[in-house]
Amino acid sequence: MAEQPIFVGIIGYGKIGSGTHKTLLDNQESVDRKVGRPVRVKKLVDIDWSSPRPVAIDIPPAMKTANADEVLEDPDIAIVVECIGGTDPALDYVLRALRAGKSLVTSNKELIARHGKELFDTAAQHNVDLMFEGSVGGGIPILRPLKSCLAGNRITRIVGIVNGTTNFILTQMSQQHVEFQEALAEATRLGYAELDPANDVEGFDATFKLAILTSIAFETRVQVDRIYREGITKLGARDMEYASQLGYTIKLLAIGTEIDGALELRVHPTLLPDEHPLATVSGPFNAIFVRGSSVGEVMFYGQGAGTMPTGSAVVGDIIDVARNIRSGATGRVACTCFEGKRILPIEDLETRYYLRLQVADRPGVLAAVAKVFGEEGVSLASVLQMDASGESAEIVWLTHTTKERQMQQSLQRISDLPEVHEISGCIRAEAAE
Amino acid sequence: MAEQPIFVGIIGYGKIGSGTHKTLLDNQESVDRKVGRPVRVKKLVDIDWSSPRPVAIDIPPAMKTANADEVLEDPDIAIVVECIGGTDPALDYVLRALRAGKSLVTSNKELIARHGKELFDTAAQHNVDLMFEGSVGGGIPILRPLKSCLAGNRITRIVGIVNGTTNFILTQMSQQHVEFQEALAEATRLGYAELDPANDVEGFDATFKLAILTSIAFETRVQVDRIYREGITKLGARDMEYASQLGYTIKLLAIGTEIDGALELRVHPTLLPDEHPLATVSGPFNAIFVRGSSVGEVMFYGQGAGTMPTGSAVVGDIIDVARNIRSGATGRVACTCFEGKRILPIEDLETRYYLRLQVADRPGVLAAVAKVFGEEGVSLASVLQMDASGESAEIVWLTHTTKERQMQQSLQRISDLPEVHEISGCIRAEAAE
Repeated sequence: MAEQPIFVGIIGYGKIGSGTHKTLLDNQESVDRKVGRPVRVKKLVDIDWSSPRPVAIDIPPAMKTANADEVLEDPDIAIVVECIGGTDPALDYVLRALRAGKSLVTSNKELIARHGKELFDTAAQHNVDLMFEGSVGGGIPILRPLKSCLAGNRITRIVGIVNGTTNFILTQMSQQHVEFQEALAEATRLGYAELDPANDVEGFDATFKLAILTSIAFETRVQVDRIYREGITKLGARDMEYASQLGYTIKLLAIGTEIDGALELRVHPTLLPDEHPLATVSGPFNAIFVRGSSVGEVMFYGQGAGTMPTGSAVVGDIIDVARNIRSGATGRVACTCFEGKRILPIEDLETRYYLRLQVADRPGVLAAVAKVFGEEGVSLASVLQMDASGESAEIVWLTHTTKERQMQQSLQRISDLPEVHEISGCIRAEAAE
Repeated sequence: MAEQPIFVGIIGYGKIGSGTHKTLLDNQESVDRKVGRPVRVKKLVDIDWSSPRPVAIDIPPAMKTANADEVLEDPDIAIVVECIGGTDPALDYVLRALRAGKSLVTSNKELIARHGKELFDTAAQHNVDLMFEGSVGGGIPILRPLKSCLAGNRITRIVGIVNGTTNFILTQMSQQHVEFQEALAEATRLGYAELDPANDVEGFDATFKLAILTSIAFETRVQVDRIYREGITKLGARDMEYASQLGYTIKLLAIGTEIDGALELRVHPTLLPDEHPLATVSGPFNAIFVRGSSVGEVMFYGQGAGTMPTGSAVVGDIIDVARNIRSGATGRVACTCFEGKRILPIEDLETRYYLRLQVADRPGVLAAVAKVFGEEGVSLASVLQMDASGESAEIVWLTHTTKERQMQQSLQRISDLPEVHEISGCIRAEAAE
C-alpha cells in the first residue's frame, strides 16, 4: 500500500481524542486495508499537554501542538476530528474545517444538536462529510443504522436510555436502596459523573441526544429547546421501591413519537414495565429502541460513553469518511431533514401517571382525592396505601392513560386540599411496547 | 426531482420479494429524497404469478414476467434484488447480474455463505456493489454496523440467537413445559417453521449466518462446512426445567470467538446464565452480541425474519447502493476477508457442560460416575439428584470449565458403566459475558 496516506488531525486530546488515537494506532493495518489507503494521524491539538491522558501513547513531539490552525490550515489534512466538546471554540473550528474542504468527525452532541443545520449546510456547500456516530450512545452503532439500514422505514418511535450517568444512579438507587445524593456520590467516585453533574442529572445531555436521534429518524430538524425535559434529582429510593411493587422500573428515558405527522418529544424519569426490553438495561449501559413501519421493533445496546467505546465510534466514522475520500464520494449521504414537523406541547401528552402523596391519616382522605380525579376525568388503575405513621400516611396511585393537561389540573386541585400535605412524586409511566 | 430514475429488478416474488416491493412503494418519496434520485422498480420476476402473496400490491401486468433475462439483460436496470433463496438458480442469476455491471442486493444467507468469495471477486471485477444485510438477523442492522461503525475494532467474539424458528420452539418448551415435537407443531401452525424444518432445527440456517457474521468480524473467509453444528431435536422439556433450576436458559447459539489468531466456531444448544443479555431474547426474536477491542460489548436485537423486517433490510441496501450509484462510488466497501485464519477443532473447546444421566438407583452410583470424571480431570460444579422412581434415578451435573476432548472421553467411559442406563443429555454451557 504505497499510496498517499489520508491524513487526520485531532483537535482536543482528552478522553475521546486520545481514545480515538489509540484505537487508530491499535488497528492501523486493519484500518488501512478496509479503506484501501493508509490512514495516518498527522497532528494533535490540545491547549494543555502537561496533564495525564487516560490511555498511554508515545507521541512524537512534532505531532503535538496547542495551535488549531496547524490542523485547520494544513492542506494535507483531509479529515478533522473535533474532540473538544461544548460549542466554543468547537463551532468555530468545525466551520473553518468544513469551509477549508475538510471532512469532519465529531462526537460532540451539543454542537450537533444546537448547530446541526449550519454545519450540514456548510458541509453540503463544500461537498465534504460530517459524521457524528459517537454523539449518541457512545460506541453503539445507531445513527448510521438509522440513516442506512433502516432508511426504508417510516420510523414511528424512538425510546432510549441515552445517558449512562443517570442510568447508573437510578440502578444504584433501585438495587442498593440508596437516595439520589448517595448514588450520585458513588457515580462521581467511579468517574461516571462529572464534577458538575447538572448536564447529566437535569437531563440536558439526553435532550441533545434525542434531538439528534429524532432529527434523523423523523427527517425533520428538531430544536433541542423544544424538547420537554425533567431530570432525576427529585426521585427518591421509595419511588423505586413502590414502582417495583407495581411491576415497574424507573429509567430516565428520551422518547420521540410521531403522531399524525407531529412529534411528541420528551426526556423525563419514566416508570417502565419490568418486561419492557429497556427495563433490564442497568448501570452505565445505554440502549435505544426503535420502531419502524417495516422492521417492527429493533434495539441497540452497549456502553454509551467512555474513552474507548466513543473512540470506536469516531474511528468507524473516520474509516467511512476515508472510504468516501478514496472513492471520490464525500458528501454521499447528506442531511435528511426534509420536513418541518410540528412539536406537540407536553400538555397534549397521553400517558399513565404514578403519584406519591403525603396525606392526613384520617378517614375520608382517599375519597376526597379520588373525587378530584373523578371530576377531572382521571381514571385510577392501582393504589398502594402505606402503613400510616402518626399524623401522615403515604398513598401511591397509578392512573390509567390520561391527558397531561388533566393530570396537571388534578394535581393543582389536590395540592390545595387541606388533607394533602405534599405531592412527593409524579412520574409518567409507559406501557409495554 | 426530474432526474433519470435508478431502476430496480426483483427476481423472486415470494415473501421477501413482495415485502421489499411494498416497503419501496410505501416509502417512495422518502427513499427518493434520501438517495437524491428516484428509485423505481421496473420488473418483477417469478415463475408462478398465480399463487397469493403475503402483501397486497396492485402490480401493472407489464411489470410481471417469468423470465429472469428480462431483468438480467435490461441495460436500464442498475440494481438486481435476488429473492429466490437457495443456490440454484440464484447463483447463476446473481453472477450474470454482477457480470452485466449491475449491483446486487440479496438476503440469501446460503448463497452468501457458500459462494461469497466468487460473488465478491466478481463484484470487485465489475466495480459494483454486493449487499446482503437481510441475510443475518432479518431487519436487524448488523452487517453494515460491523463493516462500518465497528470497523475500528478488533472483534474478539460474536454470539447470536440468529434463528427465530428454533428460538420460538425453545421458548415454548421452556415456558409451556412442552416437548420438542409439540413446540415444533405450534411453530409450524403459526408459520414460524417451514414444512421441512430440518434447515432450522438441525442448525444449518444458523451456520450460514455465523459464517457470514464471522467472515466480516474476523476478516477471514469462513467456510460454512467448518462450523461445528448440533441442532435442538434432542432437547427435552426436562432439560429446560433443570437448566432453569441451575439458573440457566437453553438457547440455540451461534458462537464465534477468536483465540490467539485462530477461530472457534460453533452452533449448538447452550445453557446461558439467566443474567446474560441474550437469555431474555424470546419467541421469534433474534439478537446478536458482539465484543470489540474498543467498543466493549454491544448487542443488536429485533425480528430476525419475516416479510416486512427482511424487506426493511433489503430496501436499506437498495438505498445504500443507489447512493453509491448517484455518487459514482459503487464498490466503495469491498470484501474485507484479508486473512486465512485457522479454525480450531471442536475437541479443543473449553467450556462448562450440563449432563443428564439415567442411572441405577442404588448406593455407590454417584461415586462411580464421579470417579471417572475425576480420573479424566473433569471438575464438577453442581449436581442435582432427582427423586428416584423404581429402578432408575436421574442425575444432572454441571461441570466447571473443561476441555471437550476430556468430556467426550469421560462420556465414553461413563456410558460403558453398568450402573449408567443412558446419557440423556450433554449440553455446553456459557459463562456470563
